[in-house]
Amino acid sequence: MSYMNENFLLCGENAKKLYSEYAKDMPIFDYHCHLPEVQILENKPFGDLFEVWLAGDHYKWRLMRNFGVDEEYITGKSTSNKDKFLAYCRVLGTAFGNPLYHWSQAELEEFFGCTLEINEQNAEAIWDMCNAYIRENEITPQKLIEGAGVSHVFTTNEVFDDLSTFEKIKEKNYAFKVIPAFRADKIMNIEADRYNEFVAKLGDVQDIDALEAAIEARLVEFIKVGTVASDIALQGVYPIANRRDAAAVFKKRRTGARVSDGEAETFKGYLTYYLFKLYAKYNIVTELHIGAMRNNNSKMLAALGLDTGFDSIAEDNSIRNMSRLFDALDSEGLLPKTIVFNLNPKMNTEIMTLIGCFQSSEARGKVQYGAAWWFLDNKVGMERHLEDLTSTGHIGTFVGMLTDSRSFLSYPRHRYFRRILCNYLGGMMDRGEITCDAQLVGGVVRDVCYNNARNYFGV
Amino acid sequence: MSYMNENFLLCGENAKKLYSEYAKDMPIFDYHCHLPEVQILENKPFGDLFEVWLAGDHYKWRLMRNFGVDEEYITGKSTSNKDKFLAYCRVLGTAFGNPLYHWSQAELEEFFGCTLEINEQNAEAIWDMCNAYIRENEITPQKLIEGAGVSHVFTTNEVFDDLSTFEKIKEKNYAFKVIPAFRADKIMNIEADRYNEFVAKLGDVQDIDALEAAIEARLVEFIKVGTVASDIALQGVYPIANRRDAAAVFKKRRTGARVSDGEAETFKGYLTYYLFKLYAKYNIVTELHIGAMRNNNSKMLAALGLDTGFDSIAEDNSIRNMSRLFDALDSEGLLPKTIVFNLNPKMNTEIMTLIGCFQSSEARGKVQYGAAWWFLDNKVGMERHLEDLTSTGHIGTFVGMLTDSRSFLSYPRHRYFRRILCNYLGGMMDRGEITCDAQLVGGVVRDVCYNNARNYFGV
Amino acid sequence: MSYMNENFLLCGENAKKLYSEYAKDMPIFDYHCHLPEVQILENKPFGDLFEVWLAGDHYKWRLMRNFGVDEEYITGKSTSNKDKFLAYCRVLGTAFGNPLYHWSQAELEEFFGCTLEINEQNAEAIWDMCNAYIRENEITPQKLIEGAGVSHVFTTNEVFDDLSTFEKIKEKNYAFKVIPAFRADKIMNIEADRYNEFVAKLGDVQDIDALEAAIEARLVEFIKVGTVASDIALQGVYPIANRRDAAAVFKKRRTGARVSDGEAETFKGYLTYYLFKLYAKYNIVTELHIGAMRNNNSKMLAALGLDTGFDSIAEDNSIRNMSRLFDALDSEGLLPKTIVFNLNPKMNTEIMTLIGCFQSSEARGKVQYGAAWWFLDNKVGMERHLEDLTSTGHIGTFVGMLTDSRSFLSYPRHRYFRRILCNYLGGMMDRGEITCDAQLVGGVVRDVCYNNARNYFGV
Repeated sequence: MSYMNENFLLCGENAKKLYSEYAKDMPIFDYHCHLPEVQILENKPFGDLFEVWLAGDHYKWRLMRNFGVDEEYITGKSTSNKDKFLAYCRVLGTAFGNPLYHWSQAELEEFFGCTLEINEQNAEAIWDMCNAYIRENEITPQKLIEGAGVSHVFTTNEVFDDLSTFEKIKEKNYAFKVIPAFRADKIMNIEADRYNEFVAKLGDVQDIDALEAAIEARLVEFIKVGTVASDIALQGVYPIANRRDAAAVFKKRRTGARVSDGEAETFKGYLTYYLFKLYAKYNIVTELHIGAMRNNNSKMLAALGLDTGFDSIAEDNSIRNMSRLFDALDSEGLLPKTIVFNLNPKMNTEIMTLIGCFQSSEARGKVQYGAAWWFLDNKVGMERHLEDLTSTGHIGTFVGMLTDSRSFLSYPRHRYFRRILCNYLGGMMDRGEITCDAQLVGGVVRDVCYNNARNYFGV
Repeated sequence: MSYMNENFLLCGENAKKLYSEYAKDMPIFDYHCHLPEVQILENKPFGDLFEVWLAGDHYKWRLMRNFGVDEEYITGKSTSNKDKFLAYCRVLGTAFGNPLYHWSQAELEEFFGCTLEINEQNAEAIWDMCNAYIRENEITPQKLIEGAGVSHVFTTNEVFDDLSTFEKIKEKNYAFKVIPAFRADKIMNIEADRYNEFVAKLGDVQDIDALEAAIEARLVEFIKVGTVASDIALQGVYPIANRRDAAAVFKKRRTGARVSDGEAETFKGYLTYYLFKLYAKYNIVTELHIGAMRNNNSKMLAALGLDTGFDSIAEDNSIRNMSRLFDALDSEGLLPKTIVFNLNPKMNTEIMTLIGCFQSSEARGKVQYGAAWWFLDNKVGMERHLEDLTSTGHIGTFVGMLTDSRSFLSYPRHRYFRRILCNYLGGMMDRGEITCDAQLVGGVVRDVCYNNARNYFGV
Repeated sequence: MSYMNENFLLCGENAKKLYSEYAKDMPIFDYHCHLPEVQILENKPFGDLFEVWLAGDHYKWRLMRNFGVDEEYITGKSTSNKDKFLAYCRVLGTAFGNPLYHWSQAELEEFFGCTLEINEQNAEAIWDMCNAYIRENEITPQKLIEGAGVSHVFTTNEVFDDLSTFEKIKEKNYAFKVIPAFRADKIMNIEADRYNEFVAKLGDVQDIDALEAAIEARLVEFIKVGTVASDIALQGVYPIANRRDAAAVFKKRRTGARVSDGEAETFKGYLTYYLFKLYAKYNIVTELHIGAMRNNNSKMLAALGLDTGFDSIAEDNSIRNMSRLFDALDSEGLLPKTIVFNLNPKMNTEIMTLIGCFQSSEARGKVQYGAAWWFLDNKVGMERHLEDLTSTGHIGTFVGMLTDSRSFLSYPRHRYFRRILCNYLGGMMDRGEITCDAQLVGGVVRDVCYNNARNYFGV
């Protein structure tokens, strides 16, 4: 039996009560992830533990690199799936304090009933047990998602993605809904090599009028399959640029010319503003992700491509730009419901206090400070996020957790968050810092776990 | 009975002992607040709980907006005082972790003896109980201030304010002193619409010579009614500008022309430097407030005006400018006693280590890092402030808490701070991290609660 | 008996077990300090407690200044050693939460067996006891270092330092090794008054070719006496400049002319890049220290010189520059093993996530986030560092603690760190957050205490 028992992360009686009576059994509303909808549709059984657990998971790759593991045992072709698995278990066995230490253990326990502690010594046995389980139970995406009690999955789709998959998924009558979130990043990132190729997918788009029309037309298509959320990812929030300047930059890039850093910021600054207004018009929630510095390692970018574990946290401050963007939109009555996800914890209180200036009775917690994200999605990061959120805002409006994951095994992170939430509130009860009315506190727990997100997105 | 018992926030035996034997009964020296001196003089009984508790409190308004309450129930005219009160109680009942959750409960208990837990269910009863109490006991400003054990109140007054009120208050023989702190912000903020109107209140002031003379003359008047403190509030510390440039900007603005952002910074950079030197000359403590980004929401600024809950925390780094300002002043022997209040916690250690470079034997803790301020004035913010202060400075010199409040009900925040302080030091005793000599630790508690402030301000 | 018992900082049973069974008896590998090698060689007995404990320790001086002690009792000539000692004890007695409160107590207990609590009342007795001990036991540098269980001492030496002392130390057959770390800062800081004087010590160096040749020749000499580490201290990481521009700045400065801030950055930006490549070529670990804002107080700089307690934490963000520097080096295959020491805690997660992009199988934890440094080298700072390090990296690769000290009494800081480390991991065990296999956790403790550093430096 591993260290992870039923009271994992729950330190007092109130925490245990809140978790077991209010949190544990709430369904999961996963309003932002990167699951591939085609795999959900096809629903093929997984081959082995490596395939479902290690392949493509750059969180795990980073940890192995940190430990000095040779890249051949991480992404290389000369080693077997099992070799890579054994290498990972060896690294994980002493990764005390790292979220993967908890996530990995929880994943094997919840999905495959394997309670052996993950470490070098147990690695062989785990490999055999889990692979047997996967084979015997024909583990598919559907089984994993339904087993985790998920009610909604919002995938993240580019503006030009084919949406027919979502129609076909509906026909499968899964116990959960799969809905695309609308994302125009590939049209936003004008400096990218393949930019014109991406724009071409929208049809004959030569100027900014055509670009805006094409984006809106696609959003309307997304809405037809159920879309209620969108996503924008930026290193920082840029100043709002005027449309004419942005149009000129777009024209230039469409000729195949390169644009300068300043030109790219002009274009992004305008397009961000345009997209927010568009989302407000159609009542689409905007999920804004800021603060990542991407592709730090050129050698590995060339070797492995994007999203392989070479991103980090940016220093860029943009609270002033964020203030001006939100103010401009709000002044025009076109600030949509917005969730700000931020990667740099030094901005926690800046953002929390700023969004408190743009609330309204349109929604409880109209502008949200999103849950601790990516590098912060761990016990320490979540606790600090809760401290900052509750100290300067209202816990009762929080839409709570999401996975932001490419893995079908990541749903235990919702329960991980719930344990931390219940421990945070239960600790306050234990210490006499809040009411001892468990029903009142438990109601908030249920809201944060599920009800708030469901109401906020309105599906 | 509410959750808030006599051991509120005191986790161990040492914390309880320190609080009950050393902290609880010390008087309050409130060296920075925004109480209206005229109300203290007139001393009229309050009408109802709304008037004394909710009217004008933008902290509470923000929390209600966060929860999605309609503005009509916050500052609107179409709803009654009682409706607004009920709406606030509903919001507060689940605002776990927010300082208002604690402050509001403490205020009703300490001033009106109402120990019902504040929430939707109890709201009606609380309204009736407290209003009856207010009526029966003819609650006035004097009764509130004296009941809280306050010895000194430093109000914040503009350079051109009428000071006769303070003379008249002296004649009332209250058990506490009321003394104005000198503030020249309205003369500093040269970009403001009404700037020339404010300057005109100082007489015929056309150039910087006349401006400086007028400011100094007013400071002398303040000193006659007892002033020993001043206040400067800035988004950040600007570079020291030379006098000639500042004079030109002032001239230009006095013609009615607008000044650019750069010109405004030049003027403020010079005037800050001038004011510090002036305060040093008259041995006036300077309280410097930095780090607020104000008026983020233009629509609400137009509707409700300044200080209505639409400010936030600025990102501007200015530790280098602060270093140069303090160094220039110190080199001339004209650095006054100074308390730096900072709103962005990411600067805590920057500021703590900088002020450690400008101490002297003129005073114990000549340059102070002020208590956790505004958005940080909560349990988490105070604990982090104490951690940073004690790790890089000397707790024994700290001048402690202030209210910075517009409300006559805010004095329980001093006891809130004292509980956190005693719990912090008591916890160290429990864990064997410091001496178990309660008298030695208790002496520090008394100093931080009251003696240090009294000695520092010398009144 | 003082408050500091054998379980100091160890809160649970697991922490006590980890410390006593795995940490306590590991030797000390001090891979960065400022001990004067000549004093180690001469090995003269110390005269009194002041000389070994207070003279030259600007940490203690700062604390006294914070408390308002007159400079005459800190660095002045008009007071006796004993007067200064008594003043320090008075200040320290209530410095709760400051690391000196712990360090000072530990130093007197570990080295002189004096367990009296340090405060005003005990000061006379401590003075007598410790001085008697020092006299009777003829306390020398060797006895202190050996008594602390140190295996290696890396001193910090300028590029032009005489290395014969290290050869002579070898002949003394001490139980520990003394090895110089290579530091070119005096050649880097081109804006310094005495810059040309320092360059002249390298011989006839008129252009950048000659400069690079001279630096490399000196490094080769260092390597002959055992050097495996180097040190670079910068306020921030500057952009990589090209060699031609740097050469021009160097030429200009060599004529005696002053250089602008921009020119100095150009030179430093290039030279940093050059030095990293040089260190990679010879497999020398680079210890990079960033984030100090130095000499804030001009008056005291003129009076007392450098390194006397007037430095603070800089605000400068440079994570982007650091990313580009590491990427350029890594792309050329010339990124050496590097330890980043950073003084501004707001950058903790930025740096931790960036270095995670530049690991490799050359070493376990090739790029390290160095232990909490200088102003952060305290309980709170170390705990936050461990939280950030473990949440975003792998604790098992950490090379752990160093003293960075000028004092022969600073070795108890290693045990201070070990207690905090064991308490951190033991707490996780107590709460069921990690394995209860004490041998597995204890292995990590041993690695972080000693083995990792030894393997990393390879001596």
